[in-house]
Amino acid sequence: MLIYGKNPVKELLSDPGSEIEEVLLSRDAKRDGNSGILSLAKERKIKVLLLPKDALTRITGTPNHQGAAARVPEHEYAGVDGILEKARRKDEKLLVVILDHIEDPQNLGAIIRTVDVLGGHGVIIPKDRAASVTPAVMKASAGAVNHVLISRVTNISSVIEDLKGNGVWIVGADASASKPVYNEDLTGLDIALIIGSEGRGLGQKVKEKCDFLVSIPQSGNVSSLNASVSAGVMIYEILRQRSCK
Amino acid sequence: MLIYGKNPVKELLSDPGSEIEEVLLSRDAKRDGNSGILSLAKERKIKVLLLPKDALTRITGTPNHQGAAARVPEHEYAGVDGILEKARRKDEKLLVVILDHIEDPQNLGAIIRTVDVLGGHGVIIPKDRAASVTPAVMKASAGAVNHVLISRVTNISSVIEDLKGNGVWIVGADASASKPVYNEDLTGLDIALIIGSEGRGLGQKVKEKCDFLVSIPQSGNVSSLNASVSAGVMIYEILRQRSCK
Repeated sequence: MLIYGKNPVKELLSDPGSEIEEVLLSRDAKRDGNSGILSLAKERKIKVLLLPKDALTRITGTPNHQGAAARVPEHEYAGVDGILEKARRKDEKLLVVILDHIEDPQNLGAIIRTVDVLGGHGVIIPKDRAASVTPAVMKASAGAVNHVLISRVTNISSVIEDLKGNGVWIVGADASASKPVYNEDLTGLDIALIIGSEGRGLGQKVKEKCDFLVSIPQSGNVSSLNASVSAGVMIYEILRQRSCK
Repeated sequence: MLIYGKNPVKELLSDPGSEIEEVLLSRDAKRDGNSGILSLAKERKIKVLLLPKDALTRITGTPNHQGAAARVPEHEYAGVDGILEKARRKDEKLLVVILDHIEDPQNLGAIIRTVDVLGGHGVIIPKDRAASVTPAVMKASAGAVNHVLISRVTNISSVIEDLKGNGVWIVGADASASKPVYNEDLTGLDIALIIGSEGRGLGQKVKEKCDFLVSIPQSGNVSSLNASVSAGVMIYEILRQRSCK
């Protein structure tokens, strides 16, 4: 996987825990203001390739690379089956979190961290139009990406159908739902909790597939909670109900 | 208040909702790569001062200004009394959140947003070694800084004493506390909830002043929740108990 841009690459190199396969810089690294990156890479003994600018554009697939890129190992994603198996092995009711197009790496990282800390079984993210597991996500997760099973799927809708076939109940977090999450009994079920994207919430097609829609009651002036806070509260509430039972 | 650095100033200018009193640039704006900032400021008809670099260093109080700064209006903070009065006027049990040195503007913004959305009465932050209300915080709060009473105080400990004198119970969020927050009855009390800093949690002196310490039960591999998620869960739990009562 390629990370590009001056600040992301510099930040990556400055993090002593980061794994970096190679650094790609434009031949004009000095003129582009990338000599700091060059010396950081040398310090960490990471291979540096100096390339013409248009080669960097070809490799990164964008002209916005600012003359700097870094190749990092691809995250090892899990299968959805592995997540179901984890709950079964622990003899626990399933709690998997499906992210319906979360775009902000900070939010994705924070949600993965919450699933780890509170004890969910995994996270499912879509391949397209959504954040995937990058070094920024890894950092925001405080390392939890290495402990939580994360599945990256082509089609959220068909995964939901498969889960239903496995007896899993689909619970959608929807700010406009009339039923507060604490008034729904979520203790005895295998659950997939769906969290919508930052801007638009749950997609209409996904919403229609949900067995329940539940909300966090709101009384303020601003329209909604931050996506990672909202996910955190929902995950907490399900696990609170189960441990109080 | 002064915002400085290439990216923060550029981001501020690019946000059409931002209020900016003036932009300060080094005389070498072009050579410093700040000509983009100059044209953005001209477009928005904001006064630009061109200064020698060392004058910028003097004004911002740091050599790390990267040749760019912007003056924005100071946030209008509330008094602690105003927060107590708000709860009284609404005839509700008080919920005020005290932040024991939250440093990340994203976390501060998300917590202020949560207090607005879930219906707390205010937020208290310390003057030193902590994030204050900057444009970045305003953005992360989705505008909630304009609706939530925020008090900025010199000394957290003496504010806690004052609150106790007013019959407010001090509840500390502490990951190592043995009592889960859902096992503590928090319904009938005026409450100040204290959230610790990202790295170190609650300070020892503050912890000793708490009437209760409560935790969110954790079972993962990573040590703790993100501070804004943790605050969100605690605020949710207190308000859930009150509305279920």
